[in-house]
Amino acid sequence: MTVHFKQVTIVGVGLIGGSLGMILKRDGLADHVVGVGRTIENLELAIKLGAIDRYEQDPERAMPGTDLVILATPVESYASHLKKWGGLLAEGTIVSDVGSVKGPLVEQSESLLPAGVHFVGAHPIAGKETSGVGVACLDLYQNALCLLTPTTNTNPEALYKIQQIWEAVGSTVRSIDPFLHDWVLGAVSHLPHVAAFSLMNALSDLQEQTKGDTNLLDFSGGGLRDTTRIAASSPEMWRDIFLWNRDNLIPMIEAFEQHLGRMKTYIKEHDGSGIEHEIAKARDARQRLK
Amino acid sequence: MTVHFKQVTIVGVGLIGGSLGMILKRDGLADHVVGVGRTIENLELAIKLGAIDRYEQDPERAMPGTDLVILATPVESYASHLKKWGGLLAEGTIVSDVGSVKGPLVEQSESLLPAGVHFVGAHPIAGKETSGVGVACLDLYQNALCLLTPTTNTNPEALYKIQQIWEAVGSTVRSIDPFLHDWVLGAVSHLPHVAAFSLMNALSDLQEQTKGDTNLLDFSGGGLRDTTRIAASSPEMWRDIFLWNRDNLIPMIEAFEQHLGRMKTYIKEHDGSGIEHEIAKARDARQRLK
Repeated sequence: MTVHFKQVTIVGVGLIGGSLGMILKRDGLADHVVGVGRTIENLELAIKLGAIDRYEQDPERAMPGTDLVILATPVESYASHLKKWGGLLAEGTIVSDVGSVKGPLVEQSESLLPAGVHFVGAHPIAGKETSGVGVACLDLYQNALCLLTPTTNTNPEALYKIQQIWEAVGSTVRSIDPFLHDWVLGAVSHLPHVAAFSLMNALSDLQEQTKGDTNLLDFSGGGLRDTTRIAASSPEMWRDIFLWNRDNLIPMIEAFEQHLGRMKTYIKEHDGSGIEHEIAKARDARQRLK
Repeated sequence: MTVHFKQVTIVGVGLIGGSLGMILKRDGLADHVVGVGRTIENLELAIKLGAIDRYEQDPERAMPGTDLVILATPVESYASHLKKWGGLLAEGTIVSDVGSVKGPLVEQSESLLPAGVHFVGAHPIAGKETSGVGVACLDLYQNALCLLTPTTNTNPEALYKIQQIWEAVGSTVRSIDPFLHDWVLGAVSHLPHVAAFSLMNALSDLQEQTKGDTNLLDFSGGGLRDTTRIAASSPEMWRDIFLWNRDNLIPMIEAFEQHLGRMKTYIKEHDGSGIEHEIAKARDARQRLK
């Protein structure tokens, strides 16, 4: 039997929440999909695009009858959301999320929900460099990896249902400890975002220092485009991710700074074999990524 | 009348030199294309792939009859090449290159050639993350930008012929001062390469620090793949580029370090609006790149 919900309420109907809503509706995985959000225009667009059936701005109207809530807002807002409507949920309701940080956030979320309401941390590794329900699509989770982060408190049935729903929308599901999740994603996602944002900002400074009316970006090839693609991501979302994964991210940025500094020293000291060694190591590591 | 050469000799038959040879041969832009290189296997492969007609390891046999030499080796080797065979070239021969640095290298190359042999600096902004003649292809320069870097010493007819040849292989040609070239490419290409190499090496360190048998790269999405694609580039080639563009690159790495450090401080101090401001600036700059 496939998984099925009576009412899924999606809080934060952007790219991630909106795409999920679209697929749930298309595949009949929920009888009703309700959107909760801040701006009416966005919610109207979500209806037009088939991501939700109706929307509510007042949780008192959105939550009754819900058997699954998907939190898809920037992670810093979880606490205020859960405090606002956690108490409105019926016993047995599952609250899950799509956030890019997990460890302390899962602990916090579990502690803010009443007994009998089940929190299951989830993180579909999917996205685009653009955000908003306007770019939501039906194949966003196709062949994507979705990480679930159960704890000793997680209700096994709720966990299984969340696994089933992500598998139903086309993802491969894998469970991982919430704190290990943050370490791993810090390395493969959050640090590269810090690098891309900083590189783009450095280029803006260099543009200002460029003589005459030369536009640096007129001379860029595909390399720069690829390297900085993720720099176009949402400021609000990434601000929260960086803050919530601060304890992992700071030493990771420092590891990166160390390698940058090493390369700079080799170049300064005209140490060709040092440079070549660093590049060869990087190339070998990159080739394993393919 | 289209441009035409009797014999083009390509020194360094890799991705860049090999692709050029293939197109010259296919389009009849040269009667003969001769390859000069270090390893016989590579030169044999170049013949098999149609990148050259024949090869020579001895410049004494390669250079007579040549009216265009294309230097396509790592830039540090230019001087030893020009010293070895510059004197063998007939008056009126053009020597051009495909190197990613220009300023001091063009000065050096001009000074090493005998009077009557014309140097024209060229830099086709094209490439792949892999190297070698095995990945050479006929459409590498299609719609690419090719930068020419004439100086007050450049022979106008030679410059015009080099312009014509790059236009004939499908590129858009633009002239730029050789020193401005190095500033611009330092920013849009060399710095992003430093960043990608350092990021990949930081990830290797973080992998070593990862507990258990978790493989970080199992959890990476398209973001990491894009951000580090250029980290798979040739160590030898990039070593030389970094060294020859050292004076631009060091302050550029420092501009990057400054933004990284700023982001780190904001994260450390839990300064959400500082983080958000940095990201928003980066996103706006990135969106202008599209």
